[in-house]
Amino acid sequence: MSRSGRLPALQWARGYDGGTLAADLLAAVIVTIMLIPQSLAYAMLAGLPPEAGLYASILPLVAYAAFGTSRVLAVGPVAVVSLMTASAVAPVAAQGLASPQAAAMTLALLSGAMLVGAGLFRLGFLANFLSHPVMSGFITASGLLIAAGQVKHILGIQAGGTTLAEIVPALLAQAGRVNGWTLAVGLGALAFLYAARRWARRGLTAAGLPGWLADMLARAAPILAIAVSILLARALDLGAKGVALVGSIPQGLPVPGLPALSIDLLAALAPAAALISVVGFVESVSVGQTLAARRRERIAPDQELVGLGAANIAAGLSGGFPVTGGFARSVVNEDAGARTPAAGIFTAIGIAGAALFLTPLLADLPQAVLAATIILAVLSLVDLRAVLRVLAYSRQDFAAMAATILVTLALGVEQGIGTGVALSLVMQLYRSARPHMAVVGQVPGTEHFRNVLRHEVVTWPEILSLRVDESLYFANSRFLEDRIAALVAEHPRLRHVVLMCPAVSDIDASALKSLEEINRRLAESGVRFHLSEVKGPVMDRLKRSDFLHHLSGQVFLSQHEAICRLRGAEAQGAAQKLS
Amino acid sequence: MSRSGRLPALQWARGYDGGTLAADLLAAVIVTIMLIPQSLAYAMLAGLPPEAGLYASILPLVAYAAFGTSRVLAVGPVAVVSLMTASAVAPVAAQGLASPQAAAMTLALLSGAMLVGAGLFRLGFLANFLSHPVMSGFITASGLLIAAGQVKHILGIQAGGTTLAEIVPALLAQAGRVNGWTLAVGLGALAFLYAARRWARRGLTAAGLPGWLADMLARAAPILAIAVSILLARALDLGAKGVALVGSIPQGLPVPGLPALSIDLLAALAPAAALISVVGFVESVSVGQTLAARRRERIAPDQELVGLGAANIAAGLSGGFPVTGGFARSVVNEDAGARTPAAGIFTAIGIAGAALFLTPLLADLPQAVLAATIILAVLSLVDLRAVLRVLAYSRQDFAAMAATILVTLALGVEQGIGTGVALSLVMQLYRSARPHMAVVGQVPGTEHFRNVLRHEVVTWPEILSLRVDESLYFANSRFLEDRIAALVAEHPRLRHVVLMCPAVSDIDASALKSLEEINRRLAESGVRFHLSEVKGPVMDRLKRSDFLHHLSGQVFLSQHEAICRLRGAEAQGAAQKLS
Repeated sequence: MSRSGRLPALQWARGYDGGTLAADLLAAVIVTIMLIPQSLAYAMLAGLPPEAGLYASILPLVAYAAFGTSRVLAVGPVAVVSLMTASAVAPVAAQGLASPQAAAMTLALLSGAMLVGAGLFRLGFLANFLSHPVMSGFITASGLLIAAGQVKHILGIQAGGTTLAEIVPALLAQAGRVNGWTLAVGLGALAFLYAARRWARRGLTAAGLPGWLADMLARAAPILAIAVSILLARALDLGAKGVALVGSIPQGLPVPGLPALSIDLLAALAPAAALISVVGFVESVSVGQTLAARRRERIAPDQELVGLGAANIAAGLSGGFPVTGGFARSVVNEDAGARTPAAGIFTAIGIAGAALFLTPLLADLPQAVLAATIILAVLSLVDLRAVLRVLAYSRQDFAAMAATILVTLALGVEQGIGTGVALSLVMQLYRSARPHMAVVGQVPGTEHFRNVLRHEVVTWPEILSLRVDESLYFANSRFLEDRIAALVAEHPRLRHVVLMCPAVSDIDASALKSLEEINRRLAESGVRFHLSEVKGPVMDRLKRSDFLHHLSGQVFLSQHEAICRLRGAEAQGAAQKLS
Repeated sequence: MSRSGRLPALQWARGYDGGTLAADLLAAVIVTIMLIPQSLAYAMLAGLPPEAGLYASILPLVAYAAFGTSRVLAVGPVAVVSLMTASAVAPVAAQGLASPQAAAMTLALLSGAMLVGAGLFRLGFLANFLSHPVMSGFITASGLLIAAGQVKHILGIQAGGTTLAEIVPALLAQAGRVNGWTLAVGLGALAFLYAARRWARRGLTAAGLPGWLADMLARAAPILAIAVSILLARALDLGAKGVALVGSIPQGLPVPGLPALSIDLLAALAPAAALISVVGFVESVSVGQTLAARRRERIAPDQELVGLGAANIAAGLSGGFPVTGGFARSVVNEDAGARTPAAGIFTAIGIAGAALFLTPLLADLPQAVLAATIILAVLSLVDLRAVLRVLAYSRQDFAAMAATILVTLALGVEQGIGTGVALSLVMQLYRSARPHMAVVGQVPGTEHFRNVLRHEVVTWPEILSLRVDESLYFANSRFLEDRIAALVAEHPRLRHVVLMCPAVSDIDASALKSLEEINRRLAESGVRFHLSEVKGPVMDRLKRSDFLHHLSGQVFLSQHEAICRLRGAEAQGAAQKLS
């Protein structure tokens, strides 16, 4: 790979000019306005202090700009990964292995190292384990879990829990302690944000504003809600009335440094880091590919792993938590005109400015407003129509999806995604456990052989011709043993079995063992085993084993040749017996 | 399934006559002689008192005779499963969750329940997860581990450990305490058993004995070693000289009953029970199929699960431990003339007789003799040539096998088999991550389309024809997205992409999502997406989704039709522009 392949920034940095700068700067301003409330909110969702969200939106963006391949992908904290972070950090912090911040930084470092490693060793294909119905079900369930988990902030009560089974009873138990002021602020923010999302752009355009300005103002609604609620909190002294506020946030930039690492901590966080890596990568690549396609560009998935890994390592070194590419903010970034990843660097500068200058203002921000931001953001993740579409399309895929959703809601995120992946694999194994095969006979007067069940063909009682229509490997080779055993038991006069392999492009060691067993068992029951129409590479490989030496029969170039020779030999044998 | 399908004993019991009885009785005597020392030895290997081995060879044989489908399979304790039992029971007993005996009974019950459940729900295909190189590597590594673990009994020292990394240092640390008498007995037994196995049959035949008698005497060598060593131990008072003896064994039959069950105990043993079930089933079915083939019979794998499960439940209810079909004893059973599973019932009666009358004699049996029996039995499991054969045949399969062996030896049996299965799956996913596909063009003057890389064909800059040669599912569908994105980026004048699907027999929900993404991304870059030669069932399924409504292009019956229509439309469009 060329130098610019490993450091894609070298490509776009060369032709950088004033027009590109202006476009990137404008996009950065808009994304910064969108990212400040999200960073604070997702830090709260991850169970971390608000500054962690800001820190996760500074250096990671710079790292992605240097190593990522998408020109417009905007990385940072996102809802699902923040939930997974909360779920991973809570038990570790409860055990006293590390503070929540240190655990979250370690998680980001681990995930970053895994992603970079996967990129360097080209292991991106591992993300294929996560089938679409499982990923989609997981995101829907996460959205529901996140929204349910934020209800306590809107109601102003203390209620723990990381699964629906824990959250709902906890909320009900505390229902009598709802704080009216908090509820008012929370519902107000929800209503305002909902209205802004639904009608602001159209209303502002109708009022005569140009489209881009209407759009920008609509996107600024969350920051407006924050500003207004801070002013309200100060004016009405809401803190004294029991409304939970964000509290003081340290002013300044993160000081880069490693969290204290221990083997116990790394071991405890490794499974969660692996899952976060896979989920973050799948999400990010999907966003990146969609945006690249619009410009007939493409992203390089293995290099994306490196870019995303670098962003997570940067998050881990600078007081942040796991990040990935976000769909909404990337679309905003592109719509706003971002042309190169420099827009990400400018956004990072904007967030750094917020960390330096705005944090004192945020102390009086009601947490209920952040909760309202989260709830509105995640409800778009809940896609029940997708569940119905999958149900209509495939029952097996629906089973994997439903299991993922139910287990995620009932037992937690790691269990949910693990169940879904395991079930997908089991069902794929089930689907592929029976290789397509057919007993064939000769089409009269031709050299063609066809399925005996579908065509009028000729067969002979002493010869069984079985055509295999796919590669043989560990998942399906034992079925071939069973099938041949059954056919032999059904055909008492059988002397020859010919396995036709025109579509077999691979035979792994398990399948080779099965062929050896078939050959041995057939020989013990007095039947010879032959192959026909074996592809060249498969034949080369078989020659590297001693299978062909032990084969009781022969390998024929064509099925027609096999039948001619075997019938000829049988006729000769019969004639000798008679004479 | 018919009544005799679920209870195969009804089939063979009907035609039972005197000749069959005599044959079955003779086979039972020979197998009993072979099974007594093995039962004692494998109980020691499993870390259990000797009577557990006898108990595991009584009721389980009766249960298999009732529910199993193989006419000659001999079930009972076997080496690899005994090692797995030791590995599962030791930590549970150390934690104080249960006594070793109770834990082993629970393990057998759990494994039995899993096997019966798998049989009833036809989940036998799950055993396909265990590829042949992994199973073969696991058995080789188990043989080495077992032999290494018995060395302490031969040396007469105390040395723990369940992995090579633990066993070897423990042996070295105790090397100064070797008991000379024990070593003499152990080496003597090893030499005698080795010689008997190697030369006894030939020597006795040469001395004029009939073949069957020579064979039977050769097989009785272990029981002879036991008898002689008991006499020696008494005559020389070896117990007082520091030779470890078996000690007193309770006389009588096991009293059937449930061990005390707790959720914690079941949860702790469940993973090991699952692995034991899979390993035992794969081993047993392989033995059963081999023996059935000799008589042109077959076994029913799903019913075998029930038979093996019933045997394990019986072991769990009668003081035993997990059992499965053993290769050596089944071959002996068949060679000795067993005709029906009644031979198993007679063997059970024989072992019950031993438990009733022989146990007082066994108290003075040196453990070193049992260890020698085990070592000689398991060294035949170590098959280094199979490792070399797999290395020559396939590097990927070898990698899975080598990982299984190394991890089993270094970390233990569960970790070893888990690593092997995981690695097989990852490599299978890697192999299948790239669906076979080819860009095709028209063979001039024909309606045929062939790979552009291999044939002289015609293509058009505005049309890309891509043929997919296998079913699309979650493991390979993302690669299709990448490939099309790359092709579109390479062809600036592209207006149409046609996906030829003559070999696509399934499209799962993940692949459908990929097709939707491809369609959407192509549309955004101004390219229309078409399909051609879609199979009937696949088309029916696509109609159940809304993919065809959103498809920017059309579905053509043939690739030729697609090209004619698309070129016609392009020509028309160009003509309109010109006019």
